[in-house]
Amino acid sequence: VPARFYVPDLNPGDPLVALPDEEAHHLAKVLRLGAGAEVRVFDGRGGEWRAEVIETGSRGARVRLGAVVAPAAESRVGVTLAVALLKGDRFDAVVRDAVMLGVRAIRPFVSAHTDVTKGAARARSASGRWARVAVSSSKQCGRAVVPAVHEVTPVEDVMAAAGREGLVLVEPAASAAVMGLADVAAAPPPASATLFVGPEGGWHADELAVAAREGCRMVRLGTRTLRADAVPVIALAALLAAWGEL
Amino acid sequence: VPARFYVPDLNPGDPLVALPDEEAHHLAKVLRLGAGAEVRVFDGRGGEWRAEVIETGSRGARVRLGAVVAPAAESRVGVTLAVALLKGDRFDAVVRDAVMLGVRAIRPFVSAHTDVTKGAARARSASGRWARVAVSSSKQCGRAVVPAVHEVTPVEDVMAAAGREGLVLVEPAASAAVMGLADVAAAPPPASATLFVGPEGGWHADELAVAAREGCRMVRLGTRTLRADAVPVIALAALLAAWGEL
Repeated sequence: VPARFYVPDLNPGDPLVALPDEEAHHLAKVLRLGAGAEVRVFDGRGGEWRAEVIETGSRGARVRLGAVVAPAAESRVGVTLAVALLKGDRFDAVVRDAVMLGVRAIRPFVSAHTDVTKGAARARSASGRWARVAVSSSKQCGRAVVPAVHEVTPVEDVMAAAGREGLVLVEPAASAAVMGLADVAAAPPPASATLFVGPEGGWHADELAVAAREGCRMVRLGTRTLRADAVPVIALAALLAAWGEL
Repeated sequence: VPARFYVPDLNPGDPLVALPDEEAHHLAKVLRLGAGAEVRVFDGRGGEWRAEVIETGSRGARVRLGAVVAPAAESRVGVTLAVALLKGDRFDAVVRDAVMLGVRAIRPFVSAHTDVTKGAARARSASGRWARVAVSSSKQCGRAVVPAVHEVTPVEDVMAAAGREGLVLVEPAASAAVMGLADVAAAPPPASATLFVGPEGGWHADELAVAAREGCRMVRLGTRTLRADAVPVIALAALLAAWGEL
């Protein structure tokens, strides 16, 4: 597959399409491609085209669009990953892998036991770093969709918005009305779902009460203790497999 | 849950059980537990007991067994992960996560496009490092079984041993008789299976021919390009979910 570039404001009617600065840099300086090179461009909303590089230089890189390309299929179930913020660059890996597994959006949240202050969360949220990680992952995994990484919010807000679409992962030990992944898989796949992955410190009882009140379902993932870092990937892979999407 | 210690030669008839040196060190020096502390011990073959620390000191640590404990349930499908060796400590993470996800054994292999020399593979295989990683992961995830990490062998040998139990992950592009994960899930779960995850460089045509001749099935995992590092975890999670084991 030729190298792929992201052009968020792409208009397929334009005779020539200019790449954003970062993408032009990647094309000309990192991959050292020039006029005549065959590439692909995608608009982040599902559109992808063959393209030929027409010029690179001080004015950036411009390409001429060719035929429409069928991108990697998107999951029929629109999955939002709502996930507790992790410290440092561990959250970058969560974004990268969630995009690769096909989520439609990522909603980082803070909760009672999240190990990141709200100020630090806001600063990281505003840096645009996660959006860049999402673009980079979409380019590599072949998706023509770039999932939105939303701003960090309190988990209760995300639960209220998710309502009955919400699936809250809980420890095997948690009591209440906990269903297994097999129960989720037994029902027809939904049109959309929000998967909640809590922080390493677990959920506060008040948060589980909010989840229950809003109609979210409690789901456990197996009977073993999973590393917190690995839970988003494992849970997404398991859910998508259960819904026939992997 | 109290701290858990691994005693591979545990005899439940003994009045006192001595911990291996590494485990005694972990108990007394790292966790700073002493006489009277409540712990658990497991034998790596599925047996787990409550235990009380009787003494720690120059002669090591000794405990008295209490009641039998029901450990985390083992998967009904005995899954062997056959996986191409990765460079450096990336393979440690594969062992750790595969144990956590419940595999029964791990078979590292070298193949035409594996980026590790046979000499380096043998040296790392012989170091005992992966066995220690497996023990550590079993301790943390609550399993009372420590999966075997076998010596590195050529992939063709593992394929021959797996036969019709073998599921070889291939790129979506690969032609031949490729089935999806949904096809695997549609059949009743097998008693055991060997999942083959190839190297970043992919399979050599000769290896796929051997796999086909031995009766292994070719399986693709979704339609997107997955990071090589993440494939073992994603594939295991998806397979176990498909078989109702997560």
